[in-house]
Amino acid sequence: MRELGEVAVVGAGQIGTLIGMTLRERSPQGLAGIGLLDQREGRSQAAVNRGAGDTVLDHPLRVLEADTIILAIPIRGILGWLRAWGPQLRPGSLLIDTGSSKGLVADTMSQCVPPLVHAIGGHPICGNQGSGPEAAESGSLSGSSFALTPVRMDPTAQLWAMELVEALDARSIVVDPQLHDRILARSSHLLHLLSAALVELANDQQITSELWRQLVGPAFRGMTRLAASDPEMVSGFLESNSAETVAAVGELIEQLESLAAMTPRPDQLRPVLGEIAIRRAELLGAGQ
Amino acid sequence: MRELGEVAVVGAGQIGTLIGMTLRERSPQGLAGIGLLDQREGRSQAAVNRGAGDTVLDHPLRVLEADTIILAIPIRGILGWLRAWGPQLRPGSLLIDTGSSKGLVADTMSQCVPPLVHAIGGHPICGNQGSGPEAAESGSLSGSSFALTPVRMDPTAQLWAMELVEALDARSIVVDPQLHDRILARSSHLLHLLSAALVELANDQQITSELWRQLVGPAFRGMTRLAASDPEMVSGFLESNSAETVAAVGELIEQLESLAAMTPRPDQLRPVLGEIAIRRAELLGAGQ
Repeated sequence: MRELGEVAVVGAGQIGTLIGMTLRERSPQGLAGIGLLDQREGRSQAAVNRGAGDTVLDHPLRVLEADTIILAIPIRGILGWLRAWGPQLRPGSLLIDTGSSKGLVADTMSQCVPPLVHAIGGHPICGNQGSGPEAAESGSLSGSSFALTPVRMDPTAQLWAMELVEALDARSIVVDPQLHDRILARSSHLLHLLSAALVELANDQQITSELWRQLVGPAFRGMTRLAASDPEMVSGFLESNSAETVAAVGELIEQLESLAAMTPRPDQLRPVLGEIAIRRAELLGAGQ
Repeated sequence: MRELGEVAVVGAGQIGTLIGMTLRERSPQGLAGIGLLDQREGRSQAAVNRGAGDTVLDHPLRVLEADTIILAIPIRGILGWLRAWGPQLRPGSLLIDTGSSKGLVADTMSQCVPPLVHAIGGHPICGNQGSGPEAAESGSLSGSSFALTPVRMDPTAQLWAMELVEALDARSIVVDPQLHDRILARSSHLLHLLSAALVELANDQQITSELWRQLVGPAFRGMTRLAASDPEMVSGFLESNSAETVAAVGELIEQLESLAAMTPRPDQLRPVLGEIAIRRAELLGAGQ
């Protein structure tokens, strides 16, 4: 079994901070130390202050000295980092990212990272709409799914990454990058567009914002919460999974039109909604 | 000032139970007692057991003896009740409903309820996706908005209803029934269709349910929660506000298509998402 050894986390935002905090709290055997690098002034130190690491890395080259390298930056940053630094990675080290789309990451890792480096895509399915070190909520990785998307035939990369996920108390889900992106377009990326589109419905010339504010309920608040996410991060992962997301929007529109056409006919709509409620319970578990 | 006197609650579901429980907990001056009527076997007794009332009413006619009559049944039931019992209501009593669409209720009250009865539409903006007496969560009316939609020129109805809302620790929002329905189509009714449509996206022949289950995150759970609502209730209020809901679906589709078209161009999408995040914070308050 490989050990995590010296860990370098690139990006001290919500996810980088969360991973660092969780590793230090759980302190797995073989963890030598955690260094954090963030190009934004003061971010790494803020993450270290929250307990996410031991050291602030003062130069991008220091990352390459680590045994385990975790890229926790927005997707465009990940692709740029791979092109800039991938070719210089040390043979025998583990490289994993945390981006929420995986097809482009796999392609870019495959092109830019030498074969003796153990590279694999990663995606922790957790987090909230906040950003920065202060948005990390200790414990939120616990029991959550962590997708691992293989880049090439490399059993060591997969086993090593599974150890990392285990050390984070999360569950490894090994999945093909394209399948991952197909599902995530529908279960997550689409929801960001939807949430933003819903907010736009409240922009109604005929109705004052004050009346909207008074009549809006918790469901609208909840279903537009993703629209409060960081636009830089969201526009980045939507670009990186654009084709699947656009396809998902098309499927959603088809479903919506079909359901809307039934609204004048409750005898038609009722059994359809009943079946959907059952399918949701089967998919997500009852009471969720 | 009028007093609530003898209160009759028709329907011992989540909302009827919640209203009864809240009135008894807060015990406003002038409340003489609460009787509950529900045609489903054992429901009224279950609500009384939860503290929602003093008496199980054993006949529909008993409701007409009350001073304050609250209809807490699904919208089609409300319309049916008004047609069946409205003409027999006692002059001087207060009649209010709790349905989530108000235009048809106003029309039907206006047609079926004699002028000396104080009739007004009501809609507590709270509740969860559960149903039945056990779904009522004590305290959930507190601080929430309670729309009051006038049926005809009747200041007594409005003042009396505002006292009821105050007794429930909720906030009265007096609004025209059509405006109410326009907003609610977008802030609530549409969301039920959307939530159901999203569940359908997980019905994908190319992907096993097991993999979906493993990769689905909290956002999808949250944004499909309304699809677990009672299909009878949902299909009823969608029918009663069908024209506005279908219009809202059309507006949402337009917004979605416009945003989806920008996904390959993050430089276009990013500022749009940024403006939407600001509008959401203005509408709902930051941190919501």
